[in-house]
Amino acid sequence: MSKPIVFVSDLGLRDEFVGVCDAVMARIAPASRVIHLSHGVPPMDIVAGALMLAQALPFSPDDAVALGIVDPGVGSARKPIAVETGSGRLLVGPDNGLLSLAWQALGGARTAVQITSDAVLLTPISPVFHGRDVFAPAAAHVANGLPMARLGPPVDVETLVAIRIREPVVDRRRIETEVLDIDRFGNVRLSVRPEQLAAAGFEPQEALELATTGGGARARRIATYGDVKVGEVGVLVDAWGWIAVIRYEASAAELLGARAGDPVWIVPAV
Amino acid sequence: MSKPIVFVSDLGLRDEFVGVCDAVMARIAPASRVIHLSHGVPPMDIVAGALMLAQALPFSPDDAVALGIVDPGVGSARKPIAVETGSGRLLVGPDNGLLSLAWQALGGARTAVQITSDAVLLTPISPVFHGRDVFAPAAAHVANGLPMARLGPPVDVETLVAIRIREPVVDRRRIETEVLDIDRFGNVRLSVRPEQLAAAGFEPQEALELATTGGGARARRIATYGDVKVGEVGVLVDAWGWIAVIRYEASAAELLGARAGDPVWIVPAV
Amino acid sequence: MSKPIVFVSDLGLRDEFVGVCDAVMARIAPASRVIHLSHGVPPMDIVAGALMLAQALPFSPDDAVALGIVDPGVGSARKPIAVETGSGRLLVGPDNGLLSLAWQALGGARTAVQITSDAVLLTPISPVFHGRDVFAPAAAHVANGLPMARLGPPVDVETLVAIRIREPVVDRRRIETEVLDIDRFGNVRLSVRPEQLAAAGFEPQEALELATTGGGARARRIATYGDVKVGEVGVLVDAWGWIAVIRYEASAAELLGARAGDPVWIVPAV
Repeated sequence: MSKPIVFVSDLGLRDEFVGVCDAVMARIAPASRVIHLSHGVPPMDIVAGALMLAQALPFSPDDAVALGIVDPGVGSARKPIAVETGSGRLLVGPDNGLLSLAWQALGGARTAVQITSDAVLLTPISPVFHGRDVFAPAAAHVANGLPMARLGPPVDVETLVAIRIREPVVDRRRIETEVLDIDRFGNVRLSVRPEQLAAAGFEPQEALELATTGGGARARRIATYGDVKVGEVGVLVDAWGWIAVIRYEASAAELLGARAGDPVWIVPAV
Repeated sequence: MSKPIVFVSDLGLRDEFVGVCDAVMARIAPASRVIHLSHGVPPMDIVAGALMLAQALPFSPDDAVALGIVDPGVGSARKPIAVETGSGRLLVGPDNGLLSLAWQALGGARTAVQITSDAVLLTPISPVFHGRDVFAPAAAHVANGLPMARLGPPVDVETLVAIRIREPVVDRRRIETEVLDIDRFGNVRLSVRPEQLAAAGFEPQEALELATTGGGARARRIATYGDVKVGEVGVLVDAWGWIAVIRYEASAAELLGARAGDPVWIVPAV
Repeated sequence: MSKPIVFVSDLGLRDEFVGVCDAVMARIAPASRVIHLSHGVPPMDIVAGALMLAQALPFSPDDAVALGIVDPGVGSARKPIAVETGSGRLLVGPDNGLLSLAWQALGGARTAVQITSDAVLLTPISPVFHGRDVFAPAAAHVANGLPMARLGPPVDVETLVAIRIREPVVDRRRIETEVLDIDRFGNVRLSVRPEQLAAAGFEPQEALELATTGGGARARRIATYGDVKVGEVGVLVDAWGWIAVIRYEASAAELLGARAGDPVWIVPAV
């Protein structure tokens, strides 16, 4: 039976890029269901795409093949790869770190291959759109049951590009962290988890001061969006377990003057 | 056999919210087709989402389960519910009125349950994303054939939150109505139907004066978009039977200075 | 067996237009897979939609039915049609040229019918939304195996509206062409192919001067996005074989002051 495919990219939905990849997969694996995780990853933001994949795969069908296309190096020397994780998941995408958070969360990269087989690639391969000519066909073929080893020669998993989410610096009542990303409501996700706030000695209900290079705010600990009041800044645990900063029908990102990657310091509110 | 699922939300397509709900449903009900009605409901606009569901369900497969996620009260006391309508449709979403226009159009709310079953919920439930942990799994389970009663205890349908579209005030050659919504072309949909224009004594071809607090316009009655001329304002019956105001390749909303919920007065053109 | 449907439109994803078409198709052809090629065609841009369809169909399943909805003349005298191409493809859409580049690329229009059958149309037909009431049902019925002839009476294929992409004027070391379209990154696609650059006597590695009425730029020939340097303008062959102008993380369209349809002159760089 055909496996489903979980597809994440920065290709956007305005142009036909995603649709053509979908068409290619429907041609090769007509019975494979495609789950469009998101195509709104900020252009070329490998970390954001990697994070989405790693977080969403546990919620996906166990046999789902992951297809990731955030590929600033398309047409360059970076390898197109498929990876099997320790838990048996198959991941397809460029060797630029995009798949690495997923395999770190799923038992590590057990084996990997470089996608080179003429039976898989659509030729002539456009040097500007490997999504259509390399990654979508590879994902569809393995979803269809082709053994991963038939995509191309093995790659030493130790040589694969891997990224890491920067851990916060946790001191006594002071944390230095950074903005992980910002969603379409302007909510600011920080690279810090509630356990780390506790480890720094903050009480569960204690108000926090958030300082950025562009601004700052006093924030109250809340449980859900509805708890924040007009004019107030709230801090909650988001759906993926990260600390997020929100406002009542307003953009926390704007208030903090913060963008992805910017440093944020958390200290006690005065 | 698995039932299809008609999914409407205000979650947007930029982030991974919709994709993760899709993944969850594919995991539980791999053979259920998901029809993405729209995820562009204005954030927290329950009325707009309710209207979309009510209008689109008659065009959907008869056995389709409706899944609605416009949920400003996520994590608060509002109940997650499933409702069976008089016509036998199953609706899943928050008890905030989102499903109510659909059940009003489909034979009323016959029975309802609160979604509480541990066999359905994904735990730990995030207080900020019941879409993933409560609503998507519930919709997928009933699409898969689980009897609605197995989702949780019954809820008295008389206690469910219901909304109503505000009826226009129809006088002799004068109607007071409001803006229902505005589409991406700036076309303005009014909460009034052609029968009500007739009831107010307007002739079918008669030009109308539209007055708002922010502007106004003289509008000609037309049948379709192509009938409007450069610089002109037209009034037509839209695809759902509402009176809509349009312009030639321009925004009627901008001209009228009107937003959803704003009052509009219709009088004879002079 | 049900055929897949490749769907392209200018309906956008914010409103429920696309979702309702999808619902209608799921109702008629529950086993047909719908491939959403793009719904981000610029509003009423028939040429852009026609180009997307023509380019993407060869990458789609061989039996896929094409459904195109870019229909500024909805509700007017223009015919709703279905066309069978010389290669056996079925195309459904308005008779305004939208399907014509696809049939030109696929063996010509062999036969055509006007969609009029009461067994296919959803009545009452809204004069403003033939997508839902005419095109989606027609596409779903033929995907389901209904012979095209059952949609309505034959139409002489010689009378169908056809468009052509304007060919560039190729002189000795000078090409006059135009902007075909601009993608969401601001990359500018020109209506010229690498063979025509060669025919004009430009060397493969030769820098080019691009002149528009709104600006201009010196551009280097490159192979892929990663080859362009900060501050530089590059010219490459895009995924569909067109010459495209790009910049390093910046909008080439803005630099050139160019929009779709604008003239561009290509001469040797000085």
